[in-house]
Amino acid sequence: MTFATLHDFETALAAPITPDADAIGEARARQAQLTKPPGSLGRLEDIAVFFAGWQARSRPRIDRAHAVVFAGNHGVVAHGISAFPPAVTAQMVANFEHGGAAINALAGAAGLDLKVVALDLDRPTADFTAAPAMSEAECLAALSAGAASVEPGLDLLVLGEMGIGNTTAAAALCARALGGSGTDWVGPGTGVDGAGVARKVAVVDSALAFHAGAPMTAFETLRRVGGREIAAIAGAVLRARHLRVPVLLDGFICCSAVAPLAAAAPASIAHCLAGHCSLEPGHGRVLAALGLEPILRLDMRLGEASGAAVAATIVRAAIAAHDEMATFAEAGVFGAG
Amino acid sequence: MTFATLHDFETALAAPITPDADAIGEARARQAQLTKPPGSLGRLEDIAVFFAGWQARSRPRIDRAHAVVFAGNHGVVAHGISAFPPAVTAQMVANFEHGGAAINALAGAAGLDLKVVALDLDRPTADFTAAPAMSEAECLAALSAGAASVEPGLDLLVLGEMGIGNTTAAAALCARALGGSGTDWVGPGTGVDGAGVARKVAVVDSALAFHAGAPMTAFETLRRVGGREIAAIAGAVLRARHLRVPVLLDGFICCSAVAPLAAAAPASIAHCLAGHCSLEPGHGRVLAALGLEPILRLDMRLGEASGAAVAATIVRAAIAAHDEMATFAEAGVFGAG
Repeated sequence: MTFATLHDFETALAAPITPDADAIGEARARQAQLTKPPGSLGRLEDIAVFFAGWQARSRPRIDRAHAVVFAGNHGVVAHGISAFPPAVTAQMVANFEHGGAAINALAGAAGLDLKVVALDLDRPTADFTAAPAMSEAECLAALSAGAASVEPGLDLLVLGEMGIGNTTAAAALCARALGGSGTDWVGPGTGVDGAGVARKVAVVDSALAFHAGAPMTAFETLRRVGGREIAAIAGAVLRARHLRVPVLLDGFICCSAVAPLAAAAPASIAHCLAGHCSLEPGHGRVLAALGLEPILRLDMRLGEASGAAVAATIVRAAIAAHDEMATFAEAGVFGAG
Repeated sequence: MTFATLHDFETALAAPITPDADAIGEARARQAQLTKPPGSLGRLEDIAVFFAGWQARSRPRIDRAHAVVFAGNHGVVAHGISAFPPAVTAQMVANFEHGGAAINALAGAAGLDLKVVALDLDRPTADFTAAPAMSEAECLAALSAGAASVEPGLDLLVLGEMGIGNTTAAAALCARALGGSGTDWVGPGTGVDGAGVARKVAVVDSALAFHAGAPMTAFETLRRVGGREIAAIAGAVLRARHLRVPVLLDGFICCSAVAPLAAAAPASIAHCLAGHCSLEPGHGRVLAALGLEPILRLDMRLGEASGAAVAATIVRAAIAAHDEMATFAEAGVFGAG
């Protein structure tokens, strides 16, 4: 799947792809026979059934699991909206590649192969208070890079990002896709102070006003106020759905990347679970707007797919219980049946 | 450590054992140097520092980790307070031993060696509405069995239980140790209906009245309204503290077992973390009373150490990040320093 044209994107967004109803039914029936009171594994049962549906097998597996971290740079940093200089994006990509970042350790702990996709770090997006962040061709290229990162045959895809300045883009995306203004979606990000938050709010409101006349489509929102790593996440999510690969979304930026998709076509993110809810205030709001209940609430706020990678350990536990437990009949235990 | 006499128990309860302040300071300093915004790993940072303190090393490890599940039977089941017959306790112990229960799968997923300790299943405790559940000798034996299950040199101990009827005992323990009456602490357990809940409330209130004149000590509370698996958990917790082994507590019953210890000597459970908060309503209340913030909220309600075992995967992630990440200096990343 590449997004050579806008039509390709619209086609992927609208594709009628649903989980396998038979596998869901069989997985639910199996859960009812396992040696435990019905429902007593709570969310773990739901996760196992979710994976059964998307993997189209009653006993899902996590043999091949990837974490993909997309990185991009943002022209909007010129407004002083980040606590870190944009050079940190490339420094952190080098850190990922040398194995020294949180996501390296957390992906390892969760049994995820880590891929890092740096997108034109030396070519930041345009300042979106005064122009679209990307041309149509640039946005399609970023969507395609995201799609290309998703390998067929994966059992789980964990998505995340790195990009100095991208909580400001995320706030603009959420506001344009879901409604509200800068104050509704801006937070401290990696740690700006009150004046920095005020600058972020002003930047978001300025961007919303500048692009108000443009079409309110998913593509135009991603292109105008997003970023390359953000469009890549959207492309990866659409490609994963095409391949029926279940996705764990990470934090605020990652969820903001799918907000335009969900606003246009709610079913387009039905294969996604929210790994966690971060401390960034907009994250809880976007999760609620998308109807996603986070698996974890660990007060994380790092990005890099870190929260979703930790959640992957919960997915593994859920699938292990579903697959390995004995039924009442097998174990000779007095059951509900 | 054995609890040959009540004096042994009181000595262990009052022992002045604290985490290593130097290791805590060094671990916090390390967290501040790792390539991430300060505090951005949230709870994962706190968990790593907690383990550093109790393991007395600035970079804690999880090389040897056990899950121990204690099982016991309860005379109070004669009042019709469980959805399952007491024979299920032994059936589930057999299921644990054959590898077919949830805890087998979840311990495997978390890298925990599972030990199952069945305590006189053919000798239920006395009906505690009309007598102490255990004699002094029986309670000391159960405490000692719990202590004996904790091996020196563990890096993590996950505790849980199995015992038909034991949410009623747990409610009585919480009420006697922390205050309140049956309605404050009783819930549906493994799934009794409204009439069953009403019977549980009546049983708890009856027990509280029967034992009201007895000393309000931790030992008398465990002995009078607890059970063998519950006293064993208390003994294991005290032994783990003596050995400086960090503990993950499981659900309502597991937390009720330490409530009498905490009420008598709050520091006696300072080495314990709450693995999760279950759907059993009393669990959230006892966690709040003990000042424990659960790591997970996954709507589980199974027992067997299942929730704490899943939380052990989060502990592993926390410690992996703490141990494996590069510092700003090592990675050449622009940092806070």
